[in-house]
Amino acid sequence: MRTPVPDYLTELIEGCTADADGELASYIPELANVDPAQLAVAVCTPDGTVYAAGDADAQFTIQSISKPFAYALALRDRGLDVVLDHVGVEPSGDAFNEMSVESATGRPRNPMINIGAITTHSLVGNPAIPYEARAAVLIDGLSRFAGRTLDVDEAVLESEYATRYRNVALASMARSNDFIHVEPDEAVWGYTKQCSALVTARDLAVMATTLAGGGKNPLTGEQVVPQWVCRQVLSVMMSCGMYDAAGDWLSQVGIPAKSGVSGGILGALPGQAGIGTFSPRLDRFGNSVRGVQLFERLSGDMGLHIMELPAPSIDAIGARDESEDGRPLIAVQGPVIFSTAELALRRFAEIPDDERDVVIDLRMVTTMNSVGKRMLAEGVRRLKLDGREVELLLPRADFSLT
Amino acid sequence: MRTPVPDYLTELIEGCTADADGELASYIPELANVDPAQLAVAVCTPDGTVYAAGDADAQFTIQSISKPFAYALALRDRGLDVVLDHVGVEPSGDAFNEMSVESATGRPRNPMINIGAITTHSLVGNPAIPYEARAAVLIDGLSRFAGRTLDVDEAVLESEYATRYRNVALASMARSNDFIHVEPDEAVWGYTKQCSALVTARDLAVMATTLAGGGKNPLTGEQVVPQWVCRQVLSVMMSCGMYDAAGDWLSQVGIPAKSGVSGGILGALPGQAGIGTFSPRLDRFGNSVRGVQLFERLSGDMGLHIMELPAPSIDAIGARDESEDGRPLIAVQGPVIFSTAELALRRFAEIPDDERDVVIDLRMVTTMNSVGKRMLAEGVRRLKLDGREVELLLPRADFSLT
Amino acid sequence: MRTPVPDYLTELIEGCTADADGELASYIPELANVDPAQLAVAVCTPDGTVYAAGDADAQFTIQSISKPFAYALALRDRGLDVVLDHVGVEPSGDAFNEMSVESATGRPRNPMINIGAITTHSLVGNPAIPYEARAAVLIDGLSRFAGRTLDVDEAVLESEYATRYRNVALASMARSNDFIHVEPDEAVWGYTKQCSALVTARDLAVMATTLAGGGKNPLTGEQVVPQWVCRQVLSVMMSCGMYDAAGDWLSQVGIPAKSGVSGGILGALPGQAGIGTFSPRLDRFGNSVRGVQLFERLSGDMGLHIMELPAPSIDAIGARDESEDGRPLIAVQGPVIFSTAELALRRFAEIPDDERDVVIDLRMVTTMNSVGKRMLAEGVRRLKLDGREVELLLPRADFSLT
Amino acid sequence: MRTPVPDYLTELIEGCTADADGELASYIPELANVDPAQLAVAVCTPDGTVYAAGDADAQFTIQSISKPFAYALALRDRGLDVVLDHVGVEPSGDAFNEMSVESATGRPRNPMINIGAITTHSLVGNPAIPYEARAAVLIDGLSRFAGRTLDVDEAVLESEYATRYRNVALASMARSNDFIHVEPDEAVWGYTKQCSALVTARDLAVMATTLAGGGKNPLTGEQVVPQWVCRQVLSVMMSCGMYDAAGDWLSQVGIPAKSGVSGGILGALPGQAGIGTFSPRLDRFGNSVRGVQLFERLSGDMGLHIMELPAPSIDAIGARDESEDGRPLIAVQGPVIFSTAELALRRFAEIPDDERDVVIDLRMVTTMNSVGKRMLAEGVRRLKLDGREVELLLPRADFSLT
Repeated sequence: MRTPVPDYLTELIEGCTADADGELASYIPELANVDPAQLAVAVCTPDGTVYAAGDADAQFTIQSISKPFAYALALRDRGLDVVLDHVGVEPSGDAFNEMSVESATGRPRNPMINIGAITTHSLVGNPAIPYEARAAVLIDGLSRFAGRTLDVDEAVLESEYATRYRNVALASMARSNDFIHVEPDEAVWGYTKQCSALVTARDLAVMATTLAGGGKNPLTGEQVVPQWVCRQVLSVMMSCGMYDAAGDWLSQVGIPAKSGVSGGILGALPGQAGIGTFSPRLDRFGNSVRGVQLFERLSGDMGLHIMELPAPSIDAIGARDESEDGRPLIAVQGPVIFSTAELALRRFAEIPDDERDVVIDLRMVTTMNSVGKRMLAEGVRRLKLDGREVELLLPRADFSLT
Repeated sequence: MRTPVPDYLTELIEGCTADADGELASYIPELANVDPAQLAVAVCTPDGTVYAAGDADAQFTIQSISKPFAYALALRDRGLDVVLDHVGVEPSGDAFNEMSVESATGRPRNPMINIGAITTHSLVGNPAIPYEARAAVLIDGLSRFAGRTLDVDEAVLESEYATRYRNVALASMARSNDFIHVEPDEAVWGYTKQCSALVTARDLAVMATTLAGGGKNPLTGEQVVPQWVCRQVLSVMMSCGMYDAAGDWLSQVGIPAKSGVSGGILGALPGQAGIGTFSPRLDRFGNSVRGVQLFERLSGDMGLHIMELPAPSIDAIGARDESEDGRPLIAVQGPVIFSTAELALRRFAEIPDDERDVVIDLRMVTTMNSVGKRMLAEGVRRLKLDGREVELLLPRADFSLT
Repeated sequence: MRTPVPDYLTELIEGCTADADGELASYIPELANVDPAQLAVAVCTPDGTVYAAGDADAQFTIQSISKPFAYALALRDRGLDVVLDHVGVEPSGDAFNEMSVESATGRPRNPMINIGAITTHSLVGNPAIPYEARAAVLIDGLSRFAGRTLDVDEAVLESEYATRYRNVALASMARSNDFIHVEPDEAVWGYTKQCSALVTARDLAVMATTLAGGGKNPLTGEQVVPQWVCRQVLSVMMSCGMYDAAGDWLSQVGIPAKSGVSGGILGALPGQAGIGTFSPRLDRFGNSVRGVQLFERLSGDMGLHIMELPAPSIDAIGARDESEDGRPLIAVQGPVIFSTAELALRRFAEIPDDERDVVIDLRMVTTMNSVGKRMLAEGVRRLKLDGREVELLLPRADFSLT
Repeated sequence: MRTPVPDYLTELIEGCTADADGELASYIPELANVDPAQLAVAVCTPDGTVYAAGDADAQFTIQSISKPFAYALALRDRGLDVVLDHVGVEPSGDAFNEMSVESATGRPRNPMINIGAITTHSLVGNPAIPYEARAAVLIDGLSRFAGRTLDVDEAVLESEYATRYRNVALASMARSNDFIHVEPDEAVWGYTKQCSALVTARDLAVMATTLAGGGKNPLTGEQVVPQWVCRQVLSVMMSCGMYDAAGDWLSQVGIPAKSGVSGGILGALPGQAGIGTFSPRLDRFGNSVRGVQLFERLSGDMGLHIMELPAPSIDAIGARDESEDGRPLIAVQGPVIFSTAELALRRFAEIPDDERDVVIDLRMVTTMNSVGKRMLAEGVRRLKLDGREVELLLPRADFSLT
């Protein structure tokens, strides 16, 4: 048999190819020359399997989809406090190219709008390096997220830089308010180069999975950024990623995402999947018309809405059973996080006082985060404090609760 | 042994009782008379176990925390389209009592700010009922979420209604733009009564769990609202619940939440937990100072950030094994959703063509959503199409994949 | 002969009757029923001569043109400080029916926008009177400005009050911020009645001249409000009278003015003329399309731009001459204000020290304000201090410099 | 005797020297080094007499007071339509250094805020000249208004240009929206040089009188710009000159004015006077604290409020009299503008039909604008059409009504 996922994606693509709504981005001359009929979707699983359909290997410039990754690299290089000192995390309600800053301080409102993205760009790498070197760090960083070396579209870079004045205005304002410390022209050049990196829908899916999976690239295995960076980036994508349609996207699709003016959309559902789509025609918010459709269908069909995660079944934590030799036995299954660990602890507490020896069976546990591990360890400690013998059946030989 | 969760909550409370920052809400005279030292936290699990510490049974008026529930009731009574026609879902960036409407249409921006909340209130129940009856439907609905009959604080209702003019301004503007169809004074009276319902931190935790668990009250078992309503409500709480600190809350705490001016905060993590806190002193955004601290610590200590959910382990879906009689056997464990079902389907696809008969062991599955079930069923269908005999080992006798 | 002014006005009217641009106000049902072809202009001179052409006796509701007069009456009844405490004087840049208040205090920005006008309305008369009595004071005041008893269009009053909710929103907000101290509904009813007073273009011209001439009605001779009130009202009309086209109006027309949604425009050039026009079709700012044209032509043709007043001729103050008996003689002509008095004083100072006796001839002075009088008196005092005999030739027997 | 005006100004200065409120401008390092105790006032009459008191010859950089003059030069060089295409005339309600542009088009709102001023600067001179040459045209133009060659403070220029980024942001935005066609850095350099021209309070008074008097420098006699330019500039100063205190200034002071961050204020009352003040400490709006006081007192003491101009006396136009030989005689006195010419025409019309010959005595006319001349000429024409002989007694031998 073949797994049905590719068939599903193919049907998805075929379900929307006829649509010709929306307009190509026109403010960058080079972007107006692409084939508007292109259409692609790619899904990457946590273990790096990539399913794709349509023009999934067609290259396009990454544009604003580079913003969350530049934010991740800035967090990696300068730490959370320094980055927050320079760029906020609140949605702006403004268009992406507005002078959107906090009124009291002039701090750019978030890293997903241009003024915040240019500021973020200028925070990547060692502050002392020349601007060409900073751009190289960016391209290298994007490549690590994608798991392959990305090229730069020099024609787009040149074309965008020639119409740079709005971004220079944003960079100059940030410089004037002391949030950028380099020459505005240079920051804009580097930022424009970052936006000119060439990616495919397949790349977007892998980059998304790297974010969704805690920073580890599922293809190369490289830990590109620490896990806390991913949490921060995904949070900001959730509140600010889809421009001024953020609330609508959150309720309709429910996947942290970022769109770009060249027609790509990247979505990253924590712990579940990375998704990339590509279709050049844009709606009035600047989001790809068919990309939005694909995400809406994927979210609905695949149950990927972040607000619809299933509750852990109380049955996952077996009611108290007996081991073959008659000792009380508690079997814990599935992922162990706060909510399932809490259930397990309640089972522990139900063991009658006169039972001396107990068995805790963890062999069917699928994953365990640090909180789950701490809680189970505390439960075992308390059982022992009560004077009991506890036998632990572990999922792997090298696993330890402490 | 005792489960350590109560001890943890007690330590949490003790860790912040000394703090006296923030101010009591002053604009409603009755609210200025409460004891500012009160402090409580309560956590309710998906199966209705409530852990609490501090003044968890102290009553206070629900105020703005009623907003997501009124929104849920309006969605229940009028459907998504009608409600969206009257109230948007985008964060406003404005203070909660601002005239925050879409510039083109005058539609209130979201149901979490007052103008949107008053509009939402007026959508609950049969449109033809008198306003006193509508207020009664609201109190009844809030009670169903809490699992007990809530009282109204008549003194607060009277005190707030006497200083009603700002809300009358908001209601009159909404009426003028045709989003409210009743008399502004009456809508404000009903909304004020809704805000005067008396709750405890314990109630908030139960109400949150009802939302987080898909609309089913974990105490009474009543399905208060359909599951799709909860998804919508949680999404709007995530983007608009914490006023203009929404982005900060999302990145720091990562739990859909709603705060109220009387000092309560309610948080609902989908599928995991409901949390209620109470402490009357407010920060400059109008959020409870110590409530915010409690949530920050809970989120960090308990790993409750929505962007930090663990990936399903690839080990959850056992590598192909053999049954006792030598047939290929695929064991599926833990929760079955898109990402885990996809893994299982890949294992199915790896079975060599010459193997005729296979065993699929679902006995260690903990939960399964409709997508996961559909995907597994399709996999089994395809295995059979290949001409194989498939034996399914089911988690329960009454379980069926179809 | 006939004075050519009526011929000019007739030509002016005939020059624009063909124009059918613009739309009738539609938000008040009664206003949509008027004959859109109506067109009128009237000019009133400082001494009360009224020239008119077109439908100058057609009645229409005064609407927003009542605002400067309500402001004048509030200043008369409560004084400048109290009125400034309640309503500002800065242009708002907002549409007339916006919630346009100062962000820090909530004070309405100016009396020419609705929220400021409703607040201003509530300041007229004794604060203790019931709202019906306040409306009567308003109609009485408007009538005094017009020099005849104005009627109220009860059908328009009823029609507007039925669609009052936006104004109730504004009044409620002002009440909530403590700038209105009466019930919002009552303030809006009174304000709506004020707006429903029936006037003609001829009335507007007389009302304007009353303002332009320092508060004295040129027909009845009644001093309706003190002179300082007129200066304040004209200043606010200049900066805020023409909604968000204020700057354009000031540079193009240069006459303090106020327009109304029923199609009237009133213009008052200090010391020069009062003008009223009427034509119901409105431009996108809510100003009468043909009314604006009439004012532009009148201003250009008649040299009525406030920034184009002629300088006093240095020749007005005769170079030193000799009286018939050989004494030095200084003749002062025309209006004596700062700039002309300064010239006269310079002539006084040029009289050689050895001339003992001088003649100051004021017989050709046309007007003299208090500053001019004070300056001339000081000059005469200084001439006498030098030991000279000064003979004053006065314009009238009852005139005195002291 | 000495004219009392200098004594008055000296008293005015002495009345406020003790005041030490306000702060020096700090954002430009060089401006923080001036002596904050400096205080000066100067008044220039229409014929070029300058009265001054205090530090009236102390030099300071002109800063924003250059804006109305740059606007005048742009109007002179490019015409009204081209200039209006690039810069609006509406007050902005924003601070002077805000990105204050029309939302639909991006056109800077007015020439008195920085973004409009930089755009205006770039319109002066031949579009093809290099930027250093444009700056030279500006300094030359400012010098012509002042009647002497102004120097540039190179240290201030250098200091301001080093902190140029906010202005570069504004210029880049204007360039991006196609309202500036030169390099942002170059436009800002030229604008900064324009702002660095050194003036005295005495210079400001002369420059103001040049504007107030229709563009003719009262010292040099040069017609620096046409009269229509002055009307436009004064109008924009009236609505936009005093930043966001424009309405307050208009009602309190009533003189078209412009202030600068170095402490100067320039006021120009059409046809009456030019005023310059200097005192470096600024209020929160950026206007000189003591400069505002001086203007308030001058306006009040000298009756200079533009809304308080006296009405022409009906007595100015003599009731019909008789000439020595018995013919009807109408004597016209003072300034002849619309309002006085209208009075004269009414007198003409009152002459009985049977009077054949009439005398019109214009010898006491002080000034006559083109409208007044046209109206009198039409009156005389009509008298002649009635078959009368009209004898005109003229004010000067070379004067003609036609």
